Amino acid sequence: MFDAATLKYDGNGLIPAIAQDHRNGEVLMMAWMNAESVARTLESGKVTYWSRSRQSFWVKGESSGHVQKLVEMRVDCDRDCLLVLVEQVGPACHTNRRSCFYTAIREGAEVEIMQPQNPND
Amino acid sequence: MFDAATLKYDGNGLIPAIAQDHRNGEVLMMAWMNAESVARTLESGKVTYWSRSRQSFWVKGESSGHVQKLVEMRVDCDRDCLLVLVEQVGPACHTNRRSCFYTAIREGAEVEIMQPQNPND
Repeated sequence: MFDAATLKYDGNGLIPAIAQDHRNGEVLMMAWMNAESVARTLESGKVTYWSRSRQSFWVKGESSGHVQKLVEMRVDCDRDCLLVLVEQVGPACHTNRRSCFYTAIREGAEVEIMQPQNPND
Repeated sequence: MFDAATLKYDGNGLIPAIAQDHRNGEVLMMAWMNAESVARTLESGKVTYWSRSRQSFWVKGESSGHVQKLVEMRVDCDRDCLLVLVEQVGPACHTNRRSCFYTAIREGAEVEIMQPQNPND
């Protein structure tokens, strides 16, 4: 059986988790989990991060409704990074953009490549 | 002009960088960059990480030949994570698998979902 304690956490007990849209492969965001977040995510099927700013569990979308339903969790070769394939409801980013990675560096300048969407879409 | 110093680095001066295959969206690996790595990556077009274990610059594929040619760098909303879209030559993982995320958690168990490939493929 998989045991979240066997992953490698940093000095703060955290591991980075990359959320990817399972349908089209879009990388939506990166946030952090601790061992209990990992266990809760697997048990509940709701992607649950650890908020470093609030120092509390963060069930993604709990207040906004923009939940991430876990499709599959994957572990990398070094066991120090997670990839979570998700079904994303609404935008993943708090700016109401689909993905947090909406700024590209093109020809040495920052370019916004994604617009905020209607949060109810 | 984009200035790598405007990104947010952690206490060790590092920022996580997610490498994604620009052709099919596959997430290949996650590694770390410092400000100089970011600048070198943009200047050279060769994805260049900072190796935490070796404490040195790590031009991905420099010894293995499995280089990552930068297609586009993106910054997230908090400016504390990077997404690098790459053209990956050969496998990205040191285990000769295409991606480092070759272990899935399915029904509570770890399942290997990707085999090592011929490194010359």
